[in-house]
Amino acid sequence: MAQNDSLAKFLDTAVDAAKRAGEIIRNGFYQTKNVEHKGQVDLVTETDKACEDLIFNHLKQQFPAHKFIGEETTAACGATELTDEPTWIVDPLDGTTNFVHGFPFVCISIGLTIGKIPIVGVVYNPIMDELFTGVRGQGAFFNGKPIKVSSQTELVKSLLATEAGTKRDKPTLDASTNRINSLLFKVRSLRMSGSCALNLCGIACGRLDLFYELGFGGPWDVAAGVVIVEEAGGLVYDP
Amino acid sequence: MAQNDSLAKFLDTAVDAAKRAGEIIRNGFYQTKNVEHKGQVDLVTETDKACEDLIFNHLKQQFPAHKFIGEETTAACGATELTDEPTWIVDPLDGTTNFVHGFPFVCISIGLTIGKIPIVGVVYNPIMDELFTGVRGQGAFFNGKPIKVSSQTELVKSLLATEAGTKRDKPTLDASTNRINSLLFKVRSLRMSGSCALNLCGIACGRLDLFYELGFGGPWDVAAGVVIVEEAGGLVYDP
Repeated sequence: MAQNDSLAKFLDTAVDAAKRAGEIIRNGFYQTKNVEHKGQVDLVTETDKACEDLIFNHLKQQFPAHKFIGEETTAACGATELTDEPTWIVDPLDGTTNFVHGFPFVCISIGLTIGKIPIVGVVYNPIMDELFTGVRGQGAFFNGKPIKVSSQTELVKSLLATEAGTKRDKPTLDASTNRINSLLFKVRSLRMSGSCALNLCGIACGRLDLFYELGFGGPWDVAAGVVIVEEAGGLVYDP
Repeated sequence: MAQNDSLAKFLDTAVDAAKRAGEIIRNGFYQTKNVEHKGQVDLVTETDKACEDLIFNHLKQQFPAHKFIGEETTAACGATELTDEPTWIVDPLDGTTNFVHGFPFVCISIGLTIGKIPIVGVVYNPIMDELFTGVRGQGAFFNGKPIKVSSQTELVKSLLATEAGTKRDKPTLDASTNRINSLLFKVRSLRMSGSCALNLCGIACGRLDLFYELGFGGPWDVAAGVVIVEEAGGLVYDP
């Protein structure tokens, strides 16, 4: 485990990178977007790429020996194996569909693993100016204030989040809506807001009681959020 | 049709009432809520009632001869018939479930009908400080800037919003999830954010391309939003 002063520097540098990338996202949010297609319903924008470059460059300046895994780099160059080395796992713009449409749930997600364990997590929504952070063993915070998960124990009083995902084949969609159907009998209500990382932060701060997502984009969607949820007292499963 | 100076006064007074009620909502947003139950998954809070009182009192001071229809008053005293008289139709806190859970999509919705036609609409989200306004014949605005609906013409590129609703009987839920299933084959993605009035405003400013809701709460959910959507160039149907 890294020393506390190292952890503080990792966190501060990641927050700084997220805030800088946030400026790019904020500037583009209300402008016409130059959109390319990854798949039928998955979008990648110039902003995505500019943010990943900015975040990687910023982190590499401080931590030249660290490893890096990013959504855009992976899409362009293929997967990088996760090792025990300190590794930054970055989604430069989670909620790309929201960004393209101007729906305000978008964020930067920056996680750091050491020994393959997520240690530092930073998720920043620049449109709502909401910063979620977590450091393993040191708690989770929302705009600097400590957060805890919901203490709700009854499903019927619980707010559930999930996502429609990007797959549109019939077996996947049927399974997805059947799952929603059976859960709606049991929970208070359902939210779909289009960002996996922000859903995890919603769990961490108690806005949401439950969240599941099948077939999310990759480790960059969860590497930061998992630290924040667990440090807020929540549980994360891969069933 | 009311004169322009009357319309300006109606709008200004409604915005003022919404901003004042917004302070109450903002203050309560992160506090523990004192919740009563209207139904299994529908909630009413002290804040709801305090906001409706504040808004009605504020409007009545300026417009003592006008009629008033509010969600809380209707729940307590029964339905008021809509007449041709100027009538304020108010939801003091749309997205009550979100308010209780601390999910940031909550708003005040204030609409004015004259001759049974919605003429003025004000929707204010005090958590995100987003104010949507519309006056029939005079356009729609988001925080003072003119807005237009999305120009999207392809379903496959459209972001659809709907809500899970509050009914949990099997026929309603099955019909609801079947509808979602068939639509997910055709649209880019789905959002459920828990406020009918804010969904309408999402349509008006182009964040969302399509929105439908079956069995929403009452006229207070739509009286303001319908003016804002139509003045932004959108279409509202009751199929």
